[in-house]
Amino acid sequence: MSIITLTTDFGLEDEYAGVMKGVILSIHPGATIVDITHHIHPQDLIEAAHTIETSYKYFPSGTVHIVVVDPGVGGERPIIALEKSGHFFLAPDNGVLSLLLDDMGIDSIVHVKNNRYFLKSVSQTFHGRDIFAPVGAHMSMGVHINNLGDVIEDNHVVRLNLIKPTQSGNGITGQIISIDRFGNLITNIGGKHLENICRSSNDKPVDIRVGRKKIAGLSDNYENSKDQEPLAIVGSRGTLEIAVNKGSAQKYFMAKRGDTINVRI
Amino acid sequence: MSIITLTTDFGLEDEYAGVMKGVILSIHPGATIVDITHHIHPQDLIEAAHTIETSYKYFPSGTVHIVVVDPGVGGERPIIALEKSGHFFLAPDNGVLSLLLDDMGIDSIVHVKNNRYFLKSVSQTFHGRDIFAPVGAHMSMGVHINNLGDVIEDNHVVRLNLIKPTQSGNGITGQIISIDRFGNLITNIGGKHLENICRSSNDKPVDIRVGRKKIAGLSDNYENSKDQEPLAIVGSRGTLEIAVNKGSAQKYFMAKRGDTINVRI
Amino acid sequence: MSIITLTTDFGLEDEYAGVMKGVILSIHPGATIVDITHHIHPQDLIEAAHTIETSYKYFPSGTVHIVVVDPGVGGERPIIALEKSGHFFLAPDNGVLSLLLDDMGIDSIVHVKNNRYFLKSVSQTFHGRDIFAPVGAHMSMGVHINNLGDVIEDNHVVRLNLIKPTQSGNGITGQIISIDRFGNLITNIGGKHLENICRSSNDKPVDIRVGRKKIAGLSDNYENSKDQEPLAIVGSRGTLEIAVNKGSAQKYFMAKRGDTINVRI
Repeated sequence: MSIITLTTDFGLEDEYAGVMKGVILSIHPGATIVDITHHIHPQDLIEAAHTIETSYKYFPSGTVHIVVVDPGVGGERPIIALEKSGHFFLAPDNGVLSLLLDDMGIDSIVHVKNNRYFLKSVSQTFHGRDIFAPVGAHMSMGVHINNLGDVIEDNHVVRLNLIKPTQSGNGITGQIISIDRFGNLITNIGGKHLENICRSSNDKPVDIRVGRKKIAGLSDNYENSKDQEPLAIVGSRGTLEIAVNKGSAQKYFMAKRGDTINVRI
Repeated sequence: MSIITLTTDFGLEDEYAGVMKGVILSIHPGATIVDITHHIHPQDLIEAAHTIETSYKYFPSGTVHIVVVDPGVGGERPIIALEKSGHFFLAPDNGVLSLLLDDMGIDSIVHVKNNRYFLKSVSQTFHGRDIFAPVGAHMSMGVHINNLGDVIEDNHVVRLNLIKPTQSGNGITGQIISIDRFGNLITNIGGKHLENICRSSNDKPVDIRVGRKKIAGLSDNYENSKDQEPLAIVGSRGTLEIAVNKGSAQKYFMAKRGDTINVRI
Repeated sequence: MSIITLTTDFGLEDEYAGVMKGVILSIHPGATIVDITHHIHPQDLIEAAHTIETSYKYFPSGTVHIVVVDPGVGGERPIIALEKSGHFFLAPDNGVLSLLLDDMGIDSIVHVKNNRYFLKSVSQTFHGRDIFAPVGAHMSMGVHINNLGDVIEDNHVVRLNLIKPTQSGNGITGQIISIDRFGNLITNIGGKHLENICRSSNDKPVDIRVGRKKIAGLSDNYENSKDQEPLAIVGSRGTLEIAVNKGSAQKYFMAKRGDTINVRI
């Protein structure tokens, strides 16, 4: 079992993801390669950071996760490899692994510099093919990350300046961090956080406000809502999601990423 | 050989399909996972029913087919597993397997309830990850479907109310059930049905009408048609398709799913 | 190790690519199938020719590359299989493999006719499923291409009439042959060609003109350019690419495929 996941902003229209797989299989023919997604919005580090953080834990221990969202390709930005809770990660040092650093369990981080694991010829524009794919293939074959370059401290890793939800007396203010294919609005307000608020308010009902519109209370499932009616639910990432039953919350609220969500008691 | 196919409306923009694969490989590392498509229109049970029915037979016997188009996720709708002609299917009990039930060869159907095959924590919004992926992985490892829950009769399974072609004295009326990437209009009028009509009419020529426009006769291939001219052909699903040679029938006829197609002699 | 790559214009919305994989795995359960892309623009032979030529060399020797962009499906156009530098190719004889023929190293070419390697029933509209997938599967199991049909000479293979860059006294004129997801303009002007021009001009600066706009000189990487500024660079295919740092050159220049690019000294 050697699984490699890919999370990129390459899309599937071009040959880029396919070529990365060719390089991986040339080095490690037995690798199982899984696309998490290639549809990160171009150069959107925040979206990629949330995607890898929410996804990796559903793969088996030992998986190598390659994340290539890399506006600085060909420039001076380093590449990092890290081990965390039995998973291995490889990405540009541009903050895309920020959310992994917030938790416990980072075992080792290195700056990847050892070009014996790169393709012989390294282009200035496609490190996904020339560095990330071959290094990830070698990692999946058991090359220890300490062989890839110099060990660094985790406070030397670039972190994104992610906006976190803020709590005030009678509520919490967060953001839409992603909108999925169904038009569901995925927020950064944690489900446990919400439950704590509800509990401390003696189970007083909560209101969720999206723009000028209001949703009364959290739902347990979609089924008790009328068709085309909005609802608030703790979604699959464990955070507050706004949905419209058999419709699109994106259209209903004319919402976009970055919009503010308020929870009030 | 243990193949699992996925047919969903999750799209590929989000991490949903990738995460399902992580769950499957965590349970069954040797599984070969094939995407039939993740681009079913959101919650379109009819499109999904046609897609799985037309696709499954090209996979080897023993394949597990997971279909997740599931507007009732988290609610009371059951989940069913069934065996048919050596293939195994897992889907919500919402009609999405309807077209399989029309044929012979259903060996067993169960309501899936045995949560020892689920993930430990089951969300209200993503049963693809928490139930379908792990149950399908166990099925591909040889768990018999009778171990998944209670056997039910096939007349207890939800069926879609699919519109079938109607035959009148001098013709047949059907529908566009799908439009593919090339703009081909795929109908529900069976190729054998058409041949029977032609034969019983002593090979009189047939007209195919799409809206107010008319196509004279069935073609054997694209080659004998002029570029940008429409033609009618028995397509890859074995049903009547309307195409435009080196063009798009969708644009030519300004057609949409559900539009009526008439065949007249 | 038996790898099969797929390059088609089928898209991923329909079941076509998934069904081809089912057919392949029915014949060769151990095959590893990699999508190079299914998003070739419908029936765009030139785009497909560039895609397979730029991609195949990153896969291991022994890989079978299936290319299905096939406007003549069901008609008289033959199907060819060829071996080149240890790689195997299968495609309609419509020019889609043209760029492979320009180089050295073609070992053998055949017209594929032996229907014992086809599905039993061959439709008029989906040879991807009925011929290309099963023949490619057999090739990946070691069937020699000479068993697939009659050997032909390479001057009997259909070639595309590809426009090549033209050189005049003080410059070179090429074309945009592809625009990728990031809006990068990929040209047919070879990087080595450019370097030769620069060298023969005693390292005089070069201007690259896209429409009425001008870029001064070649960049080594994106990093030295300002955000939203255009730059010219030798890209991942080894040809001149026009990019906009953290933006889209397609939007910046309002460019489309086929547009002219001029390099002047």
